[in-house]
Amino acid sequence: MPMKLSINPSEYELIGIIRGHGEVTKADLVVNTEFSRSKINGCIDGLIRKNYIQFSGPGEYTGGRRSKVFRLNGDFGLVAGVDIGATSIDLVLANLAGKPLARTGMPANVREGPRVILDLVCDHIRRMLEETGLSSERLYGIGIGVPGPVDFSAGTVVSPPIMPGWDGFPIVQTFQEFFPMAKAVVDNDVNVMALGEVSSGIGKGIKNLIFVKIGTGIGAGIMCGGVIYRGSSGCAGDIGHICIKKDGPICPCGNRGCLEAMAAGPAIGERGTEAALKGRSPILLKYYQAGGGKLRAEDIGDAAREGDPAAIEIIRESGQMIGDVLAGLINFFNPEMIVIGGGVSNIGNMLLASIRQAVLRRSPPLSTRDLRIVFSSIGPDAGVTGAVNLALDRVFEVETHNNGHR
Amino acid sequence: MPMKLSINPSEYELIGIIRGHGEVTKADLVVNTEFSRSKINGCIDGLIRKNYIQFSGPGEYTGGRRSKVFRLNGDFGLVAGVDIGATSIDLVLANLAGKPLARTGMPANVREGPRVILDLVCDHIRRMLEETGLSSERLYGIGIGVPGPVDFSAGTVVSPPIMPGWDGFPIVQTFQEFFPMAKAVVDNDVNVMALGEVSSGIGKGIKNLIFVKIGTGIGAGIMCGGVIYRGSSGCAGDIGHICIKKDGPICPCGNRGCLEAMAAGPAIGERGTEAALKGRSPILLKYYQAGGGKLRAEDIGDAAREGDPAAIEIIRESGQMIGDVLAGLINFFNPEMIVIGGGVSNIGNMLLASIRQAVLRRSPPLSTRDLRIVFSSIGPDAGVTGAVNLALDRVFEVETHNNGHR
Repeated sequence: MPMKLSINPSEYELIGIIRGHGEVTKADLVVNTEFSRSKINGCIDGLIRKNYIQFSGPGEYTGGRRSKVFRLNGDFGLVAGVDIGATSIDLVLANLAGKPLARTGMPANVREGPRVILDLVCDHIRRMLEETGLSSERLYGIGIGVPGPVDFSAGTVVSPPIMPGWDGFPIVQTFQEFFPMAKAVVDNDVNVMALGEVSSGIGKGIKNLIFVKIGTGIGAGIMCGGVIYRGSSGCAGDIGHICIKKDGPICPCGNRGCLEAMAAGPAIGERGTEAALKGRSPILLKYYQAGGGKLRAEDIGDAAREGDPAAIEIIRESGQMIGDVLAGLINFFNPEMIVIGGGVSNIGNMLLASIRQAVLRRSPPLSTRDLRIVFSSIGPDAGVTGAVNLALDRVFEVETHNNGHR
Repeated sequence: MPMKLSINPSEYELIGIIRGHGEVTKADLVVNTEFSRSKINGCIDGLIRKNYIQFSGPGEYTGGRRSKVFRLNGDFGLVAGVDIGATSIDLVLANLAGKPLARTGMPANVREGPRVILDLVCDHIRRMLEETGLSSERLYGIGIGVPGPVDFSAGTVVSPPIMPGWDGFPIVQTFQEFFPMAKAVVDNDVNVMALGEVSSGIGKGIKNLIFVKIGTGIGAGIMCGGVIYRGSSGCAGDIGHICIKKDGPICPCGNRGCLEAMAAGPAIGERGTEAALKGRSPILLKYYQAGGGKLRAEDIGDAAREGDPAAIEIIRESGQMIGDVLAGLINFFNPEMIVIGGGVSNIGNMLLASIRQAVLRRSPPLSTRDLRIVFSSIGPDAGVTGAVNLALDRVFEVETHNNGHR
């Protein structure tokens, strides 16, 4: 018999702490809340009665009596994390403690439109539920990352450049028709990846973090005070269109000299092609011919690893342009960590080194003293991991008057 | 008999709403919280009993019974707002509803060091209390803005460039020795000004706002989700040292081409002097001679208002440089409002127009659709108004385990 999750604000606060810590004692909860010990006892009793949390054995021995340790009862239910990319979809089923139970992936072109893609996703979720022997009535949440700008409260995408047919399509409602028990929530892929990093990746527990995705475009997901920061119109983090050269090349957005037009994957490929064709790099010419008259950013990365000076220079230039922009954002935002991810980040450490160099050259000492600039530790899983956590955040959210939509 | 304010988390939430609205009915509180009506009744009774809130007459007639309206009992106590500038100090005494009761200002050079300056401030607060016939035991909070980087949790300034002798000086403790009943809190002047704008200025009620102070330097105060965003090391908003020209002039910070080295007050003065001496502007030459061989940014503003083409061009250039940087920050942060303040903002609308123009040319349509770029409405009072609100925020804060320091 499926149950609707019912959580009051105090229980919500405790669950938030338990989710953050994994396992807690009552003493941990006293330290981390404003609640009295008796209120904590009451909430814990209620949460155990509702089966949301459970004992997980005695705690560390600290001289006196061993205190009881609690954790989420992950088996109480499930969530699905969905990472819709431009040309592929990744899916994870996880329990309510965020532990992955099943995963699958498939090629799929987002340009086929929302009906095709969302049917495919829902079919696969159903199939995964069947294969794991779990009922769709235990699916409490679905988190979805999409490669376009999202109107978060409406649960739709807005004028997405690479998602024809998706503009305004009711994504959240579609999932809720398929899975009426589940709360669905959709967000921009970069926001979701940032959430993945702070909940399960290299940024675990970090409050103020910028996740920079470098691929065909460049975008940032911002974590501010531990939550996704979306900005006033939901378009915060659009750093790919920051101008770095007023008389630079024209970007598809209509402006000149945007960061992504000069430093993202396609620009790296073009500069590689130029070096190959102008005779500045025999290695790149070899890759160019092998690729049928085309160079991808990854080829430049491979050539750089082989020591090709032209390829190294191209990657250094891109890293420096990205680092210069990040230096300005560090002055403004003073984050604790910057995580570099996305397809082009695979071209290697030279990119990261150049980004770091540019940042350190420009940013004030106080704001870089404790700053870490690192590659994503979960790489291609950042999206689907974040989507699981997006779903969990929604599942464990207090019901508000506007029925869960924010 | 002075009383220690004692507020529990639920009361704190209600007081926050009452402070934001000024006056509320119980129905307003039901809509704006997750609390049950009976819990709200309980809290309201408690707050009235403690004398923190009071009735303020019947509400609007909406067909049925008029509902009771509540507001803060401002007369319960006092706070002081202190705005320490480079060469002047402003002081306001306000009641707990934020209503100013007395104010004073005086010239004072911050370079005289913390002992001289803080003694002066405390003396004046005491004198203002005497003159208004109020006891220092009713002074519950003191908010202080200072012109340097602040370690917010320690209550000290850190390596302040224009505040010799202040580095690490225990500002908060000094105030608390003078006024043991009051909670003191110190923050950077630009943060305090941003708070002033959202609590009592043109940004009232706005959640995501950037306050840009243009004076001798350029800095930003960031409001994120309705609260001051300080960043991981407390130095968020340091936008004056964002690089805008790699081969630009050397800035006192050691880097080249910082925004403030090229667009703030001194740079405007220098470019004016150059125009005057090179014969490009007879009007500026006149001001130059009248100023004893010196031009201030204000002189360039006056000359621009007289229609002097060279002065107009100088202001346009500064506005454009500032606007270009803001355009990038808008891409990243997607704020709802940018407020321009500080001494140099007085040079007029031409500066604002150039900033707006540069922003609109570069920022993506979605992030500028609802964006307002405006001058501060409280001008030189932003600092002291913000300092009063900083004090109120601390007074109405729930006591935490680490004793109020965050």
